[in-house]
Amino acid sequence: MTAQKVRSVYQHPAPIQRLCESLMRLPGIGPKTAQRLAYHLLDAPLGEVQEMVACLQSLRQDVGRCRTCGNFSQAESCALCTSERRDRSLLCVVAQARDIVAFERTGEYRGLYHVLGGLLSPMDGRGPDQLNLEALLKRIESENFQEVVLATDPTVAGEATALYLEQLLEGFSGTVSRLALGIPVGTDFEYTDDVTLGRALSYRQRVKGRE
Amino acid sequence: MTAQKVRSVYQHPAPIQRLCESLMRLPGIGPKTAQRLAYHLLDAPLGEVQEMVACLQSLRQDVGRCRTCGNFSQAESCALCTSERRDRSLLCVVAQARDIVAFERTGEYRGLYHVLGGLLSPMDGRGPDQLNLEALLKRIESENFQEVVLATDPTVAGEATALYLEQLLEGFSGTVSRLALGIPVGTDFEYTDDVTLGRALSYRQRVKGRE
Repeated sequence: MTAQKVRSVYQHPAPIQRLCESLMRLPGIGPKTAQRLAYHLLDAPLGEVQEMVACLQSLRQDVGRCRTCGNFSQAESCALCTSERRDRSLLCVVAQARDIVAFERTGEYRGLYHVLGGLLSPMDGRGPDQLNLEALLKRIESENFQEVVLATDPTVAGEATALYLEQLLEGFSGTVSRLALGIPVGTDFEYTDDVTLGRALSYRQRVKGRE
Repeated sequence: MTAQKVRSVYQHPAPIQRLCESLMRLPGIGPKTAQRLAYHLLDAPLGEVQEMVACLQSLRQDVGRCRTCGNFSQAESCALCTSERRDRSLLCVVAQARDIVAFERTGEYRGLYHVLGGLLSPMDGRGPDQLNLEALLKRIESENFQEVVLATDPTVAGEATALYLEQLLEGFSGTVSRLALGIPVGTDFEYTDDVTLGRALSYRQRVKGRE
């Protein structure tokens, strides 16, 4: 009975099936979502599909990497590196270009960035050679940074990369800092994990009183 | 301060922004998911993006409608209409071609289908003329169906369409049936809404005893 059922499963026409498989390579898109998107695109105005095709073609043709920081950019140097309104004494080191978007959204940071292009992960064969480190060291040597913020993810790979960078920057005369670990804004203690709560206690901030 | 923050928001390079806006027209994709997908596509192997472009181009070029039932098909008649293994005495009327996939997945149905191309919805200006009804009536006249299953969604529009079809098929000599309403398999009564639970009681099935 089961074999019968499996054999009788209806196949989408090949172009729909092929699009579903292509969409399923995207993060967070499973078979059901892929099918939903494909059928939406079949019914959508043709212009909507053509616009998506044009966008995808332009994406890789027109967007490259900033030669200074490694951020995505249409020009040789990205809008952040060329901006005159940024604080050039501050450098924030991030794993991926998409992290820049998240930090910029906060509006709390006005310095420059450097994109590593990944995190150290010996298990996946990603060592220091695979990261954009040579350019980082050159920038630190030639530009006049007062502080380097190591803003890698608070994961095992992110912590390992930050530790590695700390050692690498031992000769740097300015400040080296890391993002604050603690309780996320708006959460309940009940749902905060023990390690996070422990860090929030260790790194507690003085509000009043002597240093 | 707020105005300052808003003004300082970092803009993606234009091609990334344009792709995000295109992706946000898809169902269930908001700004954050769109951005995640766009940045994934920037880092993905170029072949993956090219494959997606080819798939999108082929989708609307190579897939049309089956001239008999309205299902999506590469050929003039779809695989279901031309299959010799289907029960040609049974017709299932659905709103959208994607519904066929859902019914086929169950493995419980071996008949033919007819796609209406939507549901009656006077509020959106969709009346009987916008649905694929003429072809339905012609099929019922010329083909030898014993039963027509009205398988429209259990929503207001779906119910209204089913009622309309019921009246339209008054002259049909075979059986007209509707999908069973009741409690979904695997749910808790606690989470079942009152109307559904009421229908499940009204349409309860005899397990043992006299008819």
